[in-house]
Amino acid sequence: MILNEFSIIDLLSDLTSDHPCLIKGIGDDTAVIKANEDFNYLVSVDSFTEKVHFNKRTMSPYDLGYKVLAANVSDMIAMGGEAQFYLLSLGLPETINEDFILAFKEGLNQFSKEAQIILIGGDTVTSDHLSISVTMIGRVKKDLIRYRHLAKEGDYVFVTGSLGKSAYGLDQLLNQDKQSSLFIKEHQQPMIRLQFPKASNAFKRIALNDISDGIANELNEIAEASSVSITIKEELLPIHTKIKALSADKKEQFTLYGGEDFELVGTIDPTDFDELVARCEQVNIPVTKIGRVSYNEKGKSNVYLVKNGKKVKLNKDGYTHLK
Amino acid sequence: MILNEFSIIDLLSDLTSDHPCLIKGIGDDTAVIKANEDFNYLVSVDSFTEKVHFNKRTMSPYDLGYKVLAANVSDMIAMGGEAQFYLLSLGLPETINEDFILAFKEGLNQFSKEAQIILIGGDTVTSDHLSISVTMIGRVKKDLIRYRHLAKEGDYVFVTGSLGKSAYGLDQLLNQDKQSSLFIKEHQQPMIRLQFPKASNAFKRIALNDISDGIANELNEIAEASSVSITIKEELLPIHTKIKALSADKKEQFTLYGGEDFELVGTIDPTDFDELVARCEQVNIPVTKIGRVSYNEKGKSNVYLVKNGKKVKLNKDGYTHLK
Repeated sequence: MILNEFSIIDLLSDLTSDHPCLIKGIGDDTAVIKANEDFNYLVSVDSFTEKVHFNKRTMSPYDLGYKVLAANVSDMIAMGGEAQFYLLSLGLPETINEDFILAFKEGLNQFSKEAQIILIGGDTVTSDHLSISVTMIGRVKKDLIRYRHLAKEGDYVFVTGSLGKSAYGLDQLLNQDKQSSLFIKEHQQPMIRLQFPKASNAFKRIALNDISDGIANELNEIAEASSVSITIKEELLPIHTKIKALSADKKEQFTLYGGEDFELVGTIDPTDFDELVARCEQVNIPVTKIGRVSYNEKGKSNVYLVKNGKKVKLNKDGYTHLK
Repeated sequence: MILNEFSIIDLLSDLTSDHPCLIKGIGDDTAVIKANEDFNYLVSVDSFTEKVHFNKRTMSPYDLGYKVLAANVSDMIAMGGEAQFYLLSLGLPETINEDFILAFKEGLNQFSKEAQIILIGGDTVTSDHLSISVTMIGRVKKDLIRYRHLAKEGDYVFVTGSLGKSAYGLDQLLNQDKQSSLFIKEHQQPMIRLQFPKASNAFKRIALNDISDGIANELNEIAEASSVSITIKEELLPIHTKIKALSADKKEQFTLYGGEDFELVGTIDPTDFDELVARCEQVNIPVTKIGRVSYNEKGKSNVYLVKNGKKVKLNKDGYTHLK
């Protein structure tokens, strides 16, 4: 049997159990553990491996330092929290030199300043190829945790920013014949919506995910966790004109399945929506309504996309036409 | 410039700074962050890479699961704390099969039960060779943290159990011609002194380290962090008769520089020592006095070994004879 990431996680999942200090274990952007009367701690870990997540052509050492932290802080934001501390575990080839480490550090340093996070530990080991594992710790107010399971029937579905830029940028980087450098920075040094938790802290209930694996995947996670169905409309999706102008295939690939944008996708009560838009506008975060949460038909949690007047079922990695 | 683990950590160390929620960052067995009036959280990360830390001959998948957790829990114990939760980041070759994962999981499960810890998150990525990164979270009573910097002039130096077994076991495993299987289990499934924090919680001040890199290294860490010197006597070191019977070179290699025993080495006020021994005896942890903490001559933090009536300076990775 060939194992993939999901079957391995499945095999290991019964190693978890309840604990009086544990609020949430496996199954959301981060784990949540008790701290005190006011807040809980958030913890997550994420690994990056050369060749799988990046190569020398797509990411400079500076980009790498910037992005490994950005991706992990994005998980904290997607829980409504604030990142505070990180630990760094580096697997380094023997050939690594001081120039690499110094540039990597500058990337770490730049993002650390932007997100106000602090290195508090880690280790380094020798490895055949570069690997980076980041443990991020943050905190969140107890009553403002943005779990995936909080979506309710009737909610509006929203997304921040626009979709597909990072995937477009990566495509440019991988096709050297192309001369455009459009959206390359969005891939290498993605913008994290650091201000979103504060801007949205007036609203009691928001279900939230960050777009690390494509909006189709993230919406399915929300639908499954919340036992609801979700319908979004293609015409409402915020997409840059340069990406809109691409072939239909490319456009869909980048906007529905392209990851690492680290925009936020979530659901909120319709009566709160206009104020969410207004408050986010004040910190320069565009928020767009893209659909609705509907009841869970026959116990199935589906995500639908309405395109050209037809409804298709949007799976994590593609869509199937409905009969 | 070729970089080693210490020069890389040095290059990155100024990414840390103070924070109101941070009690201790880089520089001890774990980081310490504030939780509430009663306790703080401990966080550490440790990575294990095939070929560097283990190979298929020295460690079975079961051993690997057991030991990656044991090594990390040992860091919590060395801070006087109790491990609670862990996150697992796995870099897995595509060839990995279900048998491997299931055996690895059984090892994780066995140690998890012994230490009462719970998996709360993680991720898996494809990798050319097996790598495992463990993030461990624990907690400790605020006034009972066993920092390395707490050693004081006049303290007794103590160690739990006996020295060099894991290194002896590894030596047996690497030399296939040898038929002995002595101390192999001590290498593959090391015993962690889980009861030590509770058994020693009557004592306000203990400086403590776990022996992951050899007692010479750990004592130097305590001496440096505490700005003291330490003198231990060879004749007092608890060493199994089978290891005592080895050549002088092997014996020293295993007992002074052999890591991964995960015994504890520390210092305590002499007036507390007898009661520490008695309390630890009740939970089957042998505690032996091996030396004294002395004043810090001329600002230097040295570790000395008295052997055959002569005093040598014990460095992290060897010793130098004194003039």
